[in-house]
Amino acid sequence: METVYIIKIGGNIIDDEVKLASFLQSFAAVKGKKILVHGGGKLATKLADQMGVQQQMIDGRRITDAETLKIVTMVYAGYINKNIVAQLQANGCNAMGLTGADANLLQAHKRTHTSIDYGFVGDVDVVNTELIQILLSQNITLVAAPITHNAQGDLLNTNADTIAQELATSLAKLYEVTLIYSFEKSGVLLDVNDENSMILQMDPAYYNELKQQQFIFAGMIPKLDNAFAALAKGVRKVIIGKAEELHGLIAGSAGTTIRHE
Amino acid sequence: METVYIIKIGGNIIDDEVKLASFLQSFAAVKGKKILVHGGGKLATKLADQMGVQQQMIDGRRITDAETLKIVTMVYAGYINKNIVAQLQANGCNAMGLTGADANLLQAHKRTHTSIDYGFVGDVDVVNTELIQILLSQNITLVAAPITHNAQGDLLNTNADTIAQELATSLAKLYEVTLIYSFEKSGVLLDVNDENSMILQMDPAYYNELKQQQFIFAGMIPKLDNAFAALAKGVRKVIIGKAEELHGLIAGSAGTTIRHE
Repeated sequence: METVYIIKIGGNIIDDEVKLASFLQSFAAVKGKKILVHGGGKLATKLADQMGVQQQMIDGRRITDAETLKIVTMVYAGYINKNIVAQLQANGCNAMGLTGADANLLQAHKRTHTSIDYGFVGDVDVVNTELIQILLSQNITLVAAPITHNAQGDLLNTNADTIAQELATSLAKLYEVTLIYSFEKSGVLLDVNDENSMILQMDPAYYNELKQQQFIFAGMIPKLDNAFAALAKGVRKVIIGKAEELHGLIAGSAGTTIRHE
Repeated sequence: METVYIIKIGGNIIDDEVKLASFLQSFAAVKGKKILVHGGGKLATKLADQMGVQQQMIDGRRITDAETLKIVTMVYAGYINKNIVAQLQANGCNAMGLTGADANLLQAHKRTHTSIDYGFVGDVDVVNTELIQILLSQNITLVAAPITHNAQGDLLNTNADTIAQELATSLAKLYEVTLIYSFEKSGVLLDVNDENSMILQMDPAYYNELKQQQFIFAGMIPKLDNAFAALAKGVRKVIIGKAEELHGLIAGSAGTTIRHE
């Protein structure tokens, strides 16, 4: 099977023009089929402030009312997605930016929760793998924004880490998938303030042990849960590490490797 | 040759939720291959006001500085484009929203003008017809936002009427293209305030005559120039008329038909 790299870019990289430009140059140089998934929460919060739309976060998740949905759609699907695409094009990478609504790439349902109303937040149900195969076979590099739809006319705000995982697992039957979560840290750290405390490899047993000892930084838990879920569903490799070291992450010489067992 | 409809939706339709929803329902029901091109200037102006970014227009064209480019990218490529796509999906139309940067759909150059600096405004050089053929052959309906790129990393604000014309003319060798400019009026009017003054057919001689007599409303001139340019380059039919009468425009029972001679 052919290899596909699914690379999530997040954290502080997107907010930093210089770091983002350098990352996109590295990403464009990655050989073979690849998909980029991006977040952009900080820029959305900034625009909401400018527009006077108050933001509410619960456990790191944005409560998405109608005004906030408009903002994240503008920022994620518009500003960030199209700037990434234009820069990749300038670097010789034939990028195409899509949300989950486009050609029904990612169909989702509005999250229901017993006590919290998350608003227009989506959980993915179906990935259009046929579309992805057609685009990848044309040497098009997909750039996915963290917006899905419910096929009833509603756009839905969807966590980018989860989208990366859903894409990875749905493609695992068709390709040898490597899933990379790249961000501002070197990898999973035992001490969030010490880059030297990076864990080289992590399996579920070790993860549970560290979680019990509260060594795992709260913001890292959904990412790691996504990582283990991906491996359980057939993704070959999951690596978490620094965006600046993308080629090292791919080569296996940088970052934390998440292992199934 | 197979027929392709290229339909520009503009004016006050996009700003009106009810009218837009009704138009999209009609558009989704159009049989065969089709492309939708949208503007969205009024919503961009509204967001600019909210953000305190002053807008400058010269002859109906927006001067696009870096902040304004950010705004139009958010509004056109984000908010408007993705809402249209989600609604078309809900109406059973497999829509995919793209800017000119996506998969290099529309490559442009920054406009140079002897006396006016339009800023990040693009004039189209190349249409990626190969990409369009692949998408149309997959029964994907393209929804084009009025943003292009220069292949050097810059997004460029580009007139939606012009994009519709460029798409139409570039596809004229491959398909039988009908280009429809739909907006809030019944067609080209002799008296802009009287819907009964609609001209049924217009050829270049009549157009010049009306222009000389100053019967043609200024905002209509670029649209008509685009219409005649499209016909001169092989587009089969160009029709200008009311968005609410889309099926009439297609059937030839509504709107102004622009004729080559």
